[in-house]
This record gives sequence, C-alpha cells and structure tokens, in this order.
Amino acid sequence: MMKVGQVHYRSLWADESSGVIHIIDQARLPHVFETATIASAEAMADAIRSMRVRGAPLIGVAAAFGIALAVARDPSDESISRASTLMRTTRPTAVNLAWAIGRMRERLATVKVSERLVAAWDEAQAIADEDVALNESIGRHGLAILEREYAARKRPVNILTHCNAGWIATVDWGTVTAPIFMAHERGIPIHVWVDETRPRNQGLLTAWELAGGGVPHTLVADNAGGHLMQRGMVDLVLVGADRVSRRGDVCNKIGTYLKAVAARANDIPFYAAVPTPTIDWGIEDALREIPIEERPEDELRVVRGLDAQGKFAEVLIASRATPVANPAFDVTPAEFVTGLITEKGYVRATEKDLLALWPRSRESKAYLT
Amino acid sequence: MMKVGQVHYRSLWADESSGVIHIIDQARLPHVFETATIASAEAMADAIRSMRVRGAPLIGVAAAFGIALAVARDPSDESISRASTLMRTTRPTAVNLAWAIGRMRERLATVKVSERLVAAWDEAQAIADEDVALNESIGRHGLAILEREYAARKRPVNILTHCNAGWIATVDWGTVTAPIFMAHERGIPIHVWVDETRPRNQGLLTAWELAGGGVPHTLVADNAGGHLMQRGMVDLVLVGADRVSRRGDVCNKIGTYLKAVAARANDIPFYAAVPTPTIDWGIEDALREIPIEERPEDELRVVRGLDAQGKFAEVLIASRATPVANPAFDVTPAEFVTGLITEKGYVRATEKDLLALWPRSRESKAYLT
Repeated sequence: MMKVGQVHYRSLWADESSGVIHIIDQARLPHVFETATIASAEAMADAIRSMRVRGAPLIGVAAAFGIALAVARDPSDESISRASTLMRTTRPTAVNLAWAIGRMRERLATVKVSERLVAAWDEAQAIADEDVALNESIGRHGLAILEREYAARKRPVNILTHCNAGWIATVDWGTVTAPIFMAHERGIPIHVWVDETRPRNQGLLTAWELAGGGVPHTLVADNAGGHLMQRGMVDLVLVGADRVSRRGDVCNKIGTYLKAVAARANDIPFYAAVPTPTIDWGIEDALREIPIEERPEDELRVVRGLDAQGKFAEVLIASRATPVANPAFDVTPAEFVTGLITEKGYVRATEKDLLALWPRSRESKAYLT
Repeated sequence: MMKVGQVHYRSLWADESSGVIHIIDQARLPHVFETATIASAEAMADAIRSMRVRGAPLIGVAAAFGIALAVARDPSDESISRASTLMRTTRPTAVNLAWAIGRMRERLATVKVSERLVAAWDEAQAIADEDVALNESIGRHGLAILEREYAARKRPVNILTHCNAGWIATVDWGTVTAPIFMAHERGIPIHVWVDETRPRNQGLLTAWELAGGGVPHTLVADNAGGHLMQRGMVDLVLVGADRVSRRGDVCNKIGTYLKAVAARANDIPFYAAVPTPTIDWGIEDALREIPIEERPEDELRVVRGLDAQGKFAEVLIASRATPVANPAFDVTPAEFVTGLITEKGYVRATEKDLLALWPRSRESKAYLT
C-alpha cells in the first residue's frame, strides 16, 4: 500500500460499520492533502463529476460503492436502476464505470431485496480488492519491460508519462506507476518525464506520487515531449487508458495522441497499461465510437495552486469572455500503439492479439448494453 | 496600426526627444495593460530576458534600440561592443537579435563617433519601420493562402496557431496575425484555434489580440490540437518562428513540433510565417545547430492571472522541490513544414526553394560571425 507521509493509504476505502466511503480529495491535491466522507450515491456522483475522485479504474470502484450507498438507503430494483443511471452519466468516456455498474447490477439481480445491502457492500469491496490485484499484476508485467530496457541500455531508463495513472487513479499501485515503483524498489535506475497535463494538471499528482516513492522524475510542460524525444531523452512512453477498443485503440487523457504520434516519428515505443475492465469489447473504432467528454470551460481558465501565504488559491488566466473548448480525452489509433501491458501480460495492439489473450471476449459485449 | 481600446499602439516606440523607448509590458498581459519606459541598454536587456518584451521580430528591434541607448551614453567602439554582447546574450535561440545587432554595428562602424547617436537612432527606427512593412507583406501573401482555402471550402477556415506571433510579437501587424487580420477585414470567414502555449501562456496574448480585432477564436489546451486535427476541425496550422535554417527547419516555441507531426499524420498543411531576418543562412540542420534556451523552472511552477478581487496574482502549482525542465523552443524539421510565408512570397521548405527566392544568400552568413 502506498504511503502519504508515514501513513498507508488506499485512494478510497469503505467503513462498513458506519456505512460511508472515505476518499482522498484529488481536486485539492497536491497542494492540500485532505480526505472526505461520502455518505450517499448523490454525493459519490458529485465527487466523480467534479473529479474529486478520478482515474478510470478508481471511478469504476467509486461507482460500485455509490450503488452500495443507494442500496443502503433503498434496496429496490428501482433504486438500483436510478443509482446506475446517476453513476453512469457522471463521466461519459471511461468504460470502467459502465463495467462496474454492470457487474453490481448482475450480482444484485440474483439476490433477495433483504440481502442486497450485504451483497452490494461485498461486491463493491471485491471490485476494489481486485483492482489492487490487477494493478499489482500489471506492475509485474511492466517491470519485465523496464528490466529489458535497462539491460539493453545499462543506464537509467527514461519514461515519459502523461496525466496520472498512479495509485490515486486506482485503489492502489496505479497502472503506470506499479511497474515504476516495482522497478525502483528493485534498484533498476529509472527517470520519469512527467507531463503537466493541462488543463487539470494531473501530472502534478504523478509528480507527488513519484516524490512520495522516491522515484527520480522531472516535471515538463505538455509541449516539451516531442523535443525530448527528438533529443534521445525518452526511451519509452507509458500511459494509462480510459477506454481501449477491441482492436487496441487507446482513448486516454487529451494530449496522449500527440505523444504517440511523436513517439512513432522518433521510433520510440508507446505502451498503455490497461486492466481488463478498461477494454470495451463492444467497440472497434474508438475514434468513431467513443464519446469524448467536453468538460467545463473554466477548467482551462482557472488554475489552482498556493498563494504567497501558502494557502490554496485560484487565479483566472483567461477572461471569461474568451471562448474555450475543453475536450478531455483523445484517441490514439492502434497503429500508433506498440502494445498494451495488462494483468494477463503484454499484448500487441491488434484485435487478433487481444482476442488470443481474452478468447471468451470474441462475442462479448459484456455489461455494455 | 493595432488598437488597444480606441488607441492605436505599436508594441514598442521611441521618444527621440527624451531619448527613451516605450514598451508594452507583456509579462502582465493580458491581465493588465501597462506600458513601461526603457532608458538604458541594461534595462532593455533585462526587459528582453524577462520577456516583458518578447517575440522574435520585436526583440531584434528592441536590441537595436538597446544599442542606440548605449550609444547615447557612450558612442565609443568599446561601448557598442559591450552593448552588443549584452543584447546578444539575453536570448540564445532567436536569430533576429543577432541580425539586428549585426546591422547596427555595420552601420555604426562607418560613422564618426560624434555622429553615431543620430545614426544609431535612425538605424534602429529604420529596423522598426521595416519590420512593420515586412509583416504587412507577409500578411498579403498569407491572405492569398487563406483566400484559396476559403474558396475551396466555402465555409469558415479553421487555423490552429501556437504561441504568439501577433502584432505585439512584432512592431505591428504580427507575422501570423497579419494574414488573419487582413482576411477578417475582407470578410473571409475564419476561426482560430489558439493554443494556450504553456508554460508562459502566450496563447492568451494571441486570444487578446484576436478579440481586439474581432476575429472568431477559441482557446484550447496545448494538448487538444491533435484531437481537433483527427476530427477534421483544423484546416491548416500557422505559426511564427524564432529561427529558420537555410533548408527550412523551423525553430519555434516549444510544442510546435508536436503540432507539425500531428498535422502531417492528418494531411493538414503546416505553415510558418517568417520575415527574412528570421532566416539564419549560416545554419542548415537546426536540430544540431541551434541552441535551445532553457528558461527558469519557476516559469512552469508559477502561474499568473487575476485573483478573486480581479488583481494581478500568482499561484505556485508545483512544489519548489519538484524537479522541472523548461526548454523554451523546439525544432520542426523541414520535412514536416509545408512551406514558409515570407515577405517575398510563399516558398516551400527546401534549401533549393529558399535560395531561389534569396539568391544572394547562397554564400551568406551575414551578421552571424
């Protein structure tokens, strides 16, 4: 488990006795470390929408607990259906939400109303625990790649990452940070270029996590990555994903595609670290089929940080009269993806390779009706 | 001449009677519009270094006036030599500085010490006036391209630009904004995607200029451009340059290269608007030969804007303990450049085409010893 200071934390944990969920408030990180208590499905939906809870794997887990909170109030079919819709509409791009909601509904459909509360709580907790195991397994497979890179180079391996696919974007470990933390613990020298990731600057979360783990890293503007690649300063790109199509198109934080195109132009491998619940077997062409969330304009106009007194503060960098567009994700077509690092192992980004690793998914559109 | 409110401004103007230069303080734009008075070469060097005066064409003009200010204090050869070094070392990447300094020195070398003050002032003013003419001419040639794009599409032409190559980056008009303003004045429907351009957010300057001219525009994070291109929302990319090699490599604000690579992947033309003084005939391979300025880390860590009271304020977005790299420019190799829009006309980005337009530059390494 990851540490903040000397205390071990998960990014989200349930208190079954009092029937509430605790989260780390990511909207205030890394400036202020605060936890918050979520006591209703509505509050959980709001936390997901406002990105106080964020990261594709984590919002799946959060949505599962959101349904458990709804069941605690009212275990009827209608209540579960309402809570599912509430959760699903918080964020349109990540598939983990739909996956977790589908799994909760499937489980609860087989259970008597009187027994649903215990079942909901158990199932949500199982999803959370499995997420930790998925990430740990991704870590081991990613570690093998980093070990090979180091063996080939005999100097620190330079990884570029975009956004935050760290332990706070999951329940623990992180998809991208699991191999990084494991490599660092084994003494493999690595260095991470951390994209700031405008407009919400999630790179600052990644830098905060890496600093917490003692991993060498350097924060750069999103604009810098191409230049670093041209100069031989990036050995591989490693990012997370919000949704992956059955042929390996990677939908991830806006700006990922620019890094993938530049990586290709410079013969640098581009990997996405992806647990199974992030793969949407019902989608082939991500560019055409995945809805891209358009987020509030003020995410670009308002920047958060600390003022001269060290207090959490915001500044307006663009006039409210300035027109703004804020697409939150983009699609990297499979042709630009070297491969996916999954909990089942490394796989090339083609439908054939994906189906070889997940043979039962050939006809599956599980949980996505 | 460009207007701020109802008043016409150049971005820099000389007051010969009192022997001072007036500038618009660009470090506080677009939040606060303030002019400042520069009375010494040292003050001008400081204004260039701190980017209160910025933009490749403008800093060339500013350096010329900086030398004139040094001559006013002491017209000796030694003084001119010292001022030249002072000016040249303010920013290492843009070539316009070296060009303007070389031109001032060549002019002053032929003049008696007692007549140097008048000559220096006249030459600097000539460089400033010529810059306006260069931009106006670039505007006419760029306008022809925008007219053709509109004729072919019969809908608004979507231009993506990075950084600020607007009128405040030059003495007037701007290299990128000249064709845009001219097209808008002629009723050609255009829309400009304005990259925020971290870390210094010069896109906000571009948005401020376009708003001033009534040109439709939308501010986006630097990360968004690839996504917009994939969706057919960008018809052409148009940027300025800080230095162009004799074969057409374009050195410009960090992040330009990522847009050029994505433009190529999406079959979108990529143009740089470039006056002659930005071409460095002494350089062929920009990637190997142009020094890339590394700017202060706090440019990334500290963001400027307005606080809740509407006052100019700064917030710290990353801990001072976070390692930061801040390369200010990158190189777009000529292979990714569709063509250059110069005051002499449009030219493809090859040495052969460039030398056809500037035949006397075949052996020239003018002003760059």
